[in-house]
Amino acid sequence: MERAVSHALKSCPFMSRTPSQGLRLLKSTPKAIEGNLASTGLLSKAAICPIMGPVLSARGVHTSTGQRNSPVANPEQVEVVDSHTASKPLATQQQTESKTRAAESQAPLPAARSFNYENFYRTELDKKHRDKSYRYFNNINRLAKEFPRAHTGNVTNRVTVWCSNDYLGQGRNPCVVGTMKQTLDRYGAGAGGTRNIAGNADLHLRLESELADLHHKEAALVFSSCYVANDATLSTLAAKLPGCIIFSDALNHASMIQGIRHSGARKVIFKHNDVVDLEKKLQQYPIDTPKIIAFESVYSMSGTVGHIQDICQLAKKYGALTFLDEVHAVGMYGPRGAGVAEHLDYQRNISHPHANNGSILDEIDIVTGTLGKAYGVVGGYIAASSSLVDMIRSYAPGFIFTTSLPPAVVAGSLASVQYLKMSSKERVMQQINTRLLKARLAELHIPVVPNPSHIVPVLVGDAELCKRASDSLLTDHDIYVQAINYPTVPHGQERLRITPTPGHTSAMTDKLVVALATIWKQYKLRYTQDWAAVGGCAGVGVPDSKEVQPIWSEEQLLHEIPNGLNRCHCETDQAVPHALS
Amino acid sequence: MERAVSHALKSCPFMSRTPSQGLRLLKSTPKAIEGNLASTGLLSKAAICPIMGPVLSARGVHTSTGQRNSPVANPEQVEVVDSHTASKPLATQQQTESKTRAAESQAPLPAARSFNYENFYRTELDKKHRDKSYRYFNNINRLAKEFPRAHTGNVTNRVTVWCSNDYLGQGRNPCVVGTMKQTLDRYGAGAGGTRNIAGNADLHLRLESELADLHHKEAALVFSSCYVANDATLSTLAAKLPGCIIFSDALNHASMIQGIRHSGARKVIFKHNDVVDLEKKLQQYPIDTPKIIAFESVYSMSGTVGHIQDICQLAKKYGALTFLDEVHAVGMYGPRGAGVAEHLDYQRNISHPHANNGSILDEIDIVTGTLGKAYGVVGGYIAASSSLVDMIRSYAPGFIFTTSLPPAVVAGSLASVQYLKMSSKERVMQQINTRLLKARLAELHIPVVPNPSHIVPVLVGDAELCKRASDSLLTDHDIYVQAINYPTVPHGQERLRITPTPGHTSAMTDKLVVALATIWKQYKLRYTQDWAAVGGCAGVGVPDSKEVQPIWSEEQLLHEIPNGLNRCHCETDQAVPHALS
Repeated sequence: MERAVSHALKSCPFMSRTPSQGLRLLKSTPKAIEGNLASTGLLSKAAICPIMGPVLSARGVHTSTGQRNSPVANPEQVEVVDSHTASKPLATQQQTESKTRAAESQAPLPAARSFNYENFYRTELDKKHRDKSYRYFNNINRLAKEFPRAHTGNVTNRVTVWCSNDYLGQGRNPCVVGTMKQTLDRYGAGAGGTRNIAGNADLHLRLESELADLHHKEAALVFSSCYVANDATLSTLAAKLPGCIIFSDALNHASMIQGIRHSGARKVIFKHNDVVDLEKKLQQYPIDTPKIIAFESVYSMSGTVGHIQDICQLAKKYGALTFLDEVHAVGMYGPRGAGVAEHLDYQRNISHPHANNGSILDEIDIVTGTLGKAYGVVGGYIAASSSLVDMIRSYAPGFIFTTSLPPAVVAGSLASVQYLKMSSKERVMQQINTRLLKARLAELHIPVVPNPSHIVPVLVGDAELCKRASDSLLTDHDIYVQAINYPTVPHGQERLRITPTPGHTSAMTDKLVVALATIWKQYKLRYTQDWAAVGGCAGVGVPDSKEVQPIWSEEQLLHEIPNGLNRCHCETDQAVPHALS
Repeated sequence: MERAVSHALKSCPFMSRTPSQGLRLLKSTPKAIEGNLASTGLLSKAAICPIMGPVLSARGVHTSTGQRNSPVANPEQVEVVDSHTASKPLATQQQTESKTRAAESQAPLPAARSFNYENFYRTELDKKHRDKSYRYFNNINRLAKEFPRAHTGNVTNRVTVWCSNDYLGQGRNPCVVGTMKQTLDRYGAGAGGTRNIAGNADLHLRLESELADLHHKEAALVFSSCYVANDATLSTLAAKLPGCIIFSDALNHASMIQGIRHSGARKVIFKHNDVVDLEKKLQQYPIDTPKIIAFESVYSMSGTVGHIQDICQLAKKYGALTFLDEVHAVGMYGPRGAGVAEHLDYQRNISHPHANNGSILDEIDIVTGTLGKAYGVVGGYIAASSSLVDMIRSYAPGFIFTTSLPPAVVAGSLASVQYLKMSSKERVMQQINTRLLKARLAELHIPVVPNPSHIVPVLVGDAELCKRASDSLLTDHDIYVQAINYPTVPHGQERLRITPTPGHTSAMTDKLVVALATIWKQYKLRYTQDWAAVGGCAGVGVPDSKEVQPIWSEEQLLHEIPNGLNRCHCETDQAVPHALS
């Protein structure tokens, strides 16, 4: 039993956050516990814990919470409460329910002894300031007609945006914007209800059919965002599956981490993109235990890419579901923009673009994606089997109890998905611009976290310097690249995350490269060889590392340019790429 | 210690769901446990529990989970796993990370022994079908130019919508729609990033200032939805405040329930709108323990209204924060549409509309609201002190890690909030239409759950009949009112939730009343006196119940009609009300 309690202590979210010094005190005498812990808040936590509360009570420790049937440490506090109780009625409002009597609160209020909430908030904010993780939001207004330019808080001040997730400029694509305006005229601004109550339009159903087809799945379901899609789906699914265990990549997005946490299911973290580690962990559980392997295709802050084929094989072998987040890949990879999974069987998916063509796309159980990045609008979705989608639709509170996406948003997303199913031009140009920028930075030894995708994470490795670099880009060079600090990336791996788009011209690229070179010199930031000298960091300067092959091969790019240009009628005036790297 | 374990069992989410028969078996011999529980899934749950796992292990029970250092029940399963391990490398994809070797999966896969996921999903759906809580979404497309009319899946088929939460028709207000179209042209479709990365525009800041002013608060923060606002704020705040206890109204919305659950904080439920019960529960804790009282102003499914003044007084007295969800009230109550809290000091708020005017509005700590109901667009928000808002902004994953609302949505919401700050016409007409409908239904003894707000919940009290009534309205009468069944309302309290708008004409009301009268007769549904005969249900037919006074008094309505018409320039052609009840 002692062992059981020791396990409980380790797994308890309160206890595990408490310094070991505090925990050790629990073994001492009741007096020592009261004396030493009363001021830390630990005692009041322990009192309401179903495990520790009775233990402390049995040892005669007074916990001050005044729980029913528990001794109360400070009788004066109780007296204060009692003196106000049950005498005169409160002033009543419009009331339909039975209400007999309550306290009259005109007497002096004991505010001084209440918890000081404002002080607490400020203390929490101070922590953020101290560890340099406090976020200052830049005022950036992206201009549709001057893409990728924006104005700042001053409407006459123009900057070039190099860190938007509107990767392909679809947010200003006339197909998308025009569709949205027409839909506003026809169906108005909002959906006016949940999907179950007045908020389910034909557009929602059409978008879901389109997304199901895109990902070779039977069905799809649209949510307010992919944060909500991931959270709601993982928490509902893993809570329902009996004894489910979730295997989660160490770099998974916050939305998946929250979904897993909210499910209450057991989580097993495997090393980022390490399928050997994953397999080692899968082996430890019987094949008939329900399991979910949750991972991403493109990891947004590193640009690294999940090992989809390997993980699908392992999932089959060990009886697990695959849950693949393609948020940073949809619209960007594959001949129809379904993501990295579609890209892996590029030729097959060109010849036979629909479900059950034997491609890896068919193997994935649950795909999640966003309508707010490459598709340029907002919202998220899952695509999976009809039964799974229907179960999530029927049970997930985060889907059921919220207003559905506005018709115009749904129509714009539908137009964007349909457009990018047909047009490869934008994704090809984006890849070319990415290659170019990566090559230019490599020439100057400005450190880029190596990866096969469209993300260009420029390593700074210091929170304060990273913010200074970002501020200098904005103020001195009219370039906006947000500093990415902890907790989005680990301490010491702070970076400038650059995202080229098809709209960035060679002149803009030149200006960015010159600005970065200037800042690297000005702030004495580390070059690739400096990272190598200290053994490497975040993949930069790591000894004996192999060269990374981009997801989009040169052959695919060359093949797609004429196809892309022929296959669509793009009315945007996006810049023509000036070079293949 | 036995007591500690007994408490653990009660609080354990797995154990508490397990039939007591199964729990009793835990006291029997290891063999009996294995024999009887192996097939229920309980044993595998117990094995991964930090409390029960070691207990069972100490008793020599084989738990079949194959945990590290645990005995494995079925060696054959392990053999299957081992035979595939660590020999040949998997086919590799684009990989940058170290990966040494993994299992080759060309060998026959043991799919047959895997958990049958599809079967499980279907079983879960069958439960919904069996208890009649399975939801069928109606295909409803609300037409901006024919408000409150919509077409169904057949575009030529028109129905009148009587259950939308676009309570005031703002979704088709030319101020809102026009602003959104202009914003689409200027700033494009999507925000292109999170608030921290490229997704923070001047429009977001302006909307937040406007909302802070509306609610007499220092600051506001906009989220994807109010579901997310409630979930993210309650879960972050209550998890941070040391030893926090949340007092939650029994009828609180799912988003608050989830937020409280996700916080991990202790929850104390008080009876719906019962401040005596609330006070009794508050008394049990010391004044310096952090507390949050979470409640709503208008409860959406009953239309009942929270006792805001009383709860604010109790909060002061017992050192608690107030968390007030005004989702169904913003835009609808108060001279500027700030909600019920503003309405309570109507005259004072007309004379001195801004913060620190001594009204109850100033007393509330945290207000949450939506932009997707009376404001007619989509999105949610909180308004509170600067420090609290900054803390949520800085710590809540549901705010931080998601794409921000599109500029057009933000601009449309801003226009709608500004418009309804100036114009009372829409809310007054809505109230008048509500009074009229309630009076007409009362004449016919069709049972409406009594309440002082704009919601007209017509009690049916049976899931199947409720759906049949809803279907008949749609098919036979071209009227759309969704059936509201469990779990949105308790079993036996199923209802048709009707929401009049300013756009419903007297002819439409006539048609609705005739249709309901027909259906009540046709399906032999219970009238008010039938409910009275069985002692009442959901407030209907309850003996000696007092008459409910509407939030909007007749004097306020009469006062506001000329003001409302003068104060705004509404271009909508909303129907003129034909009578005061």
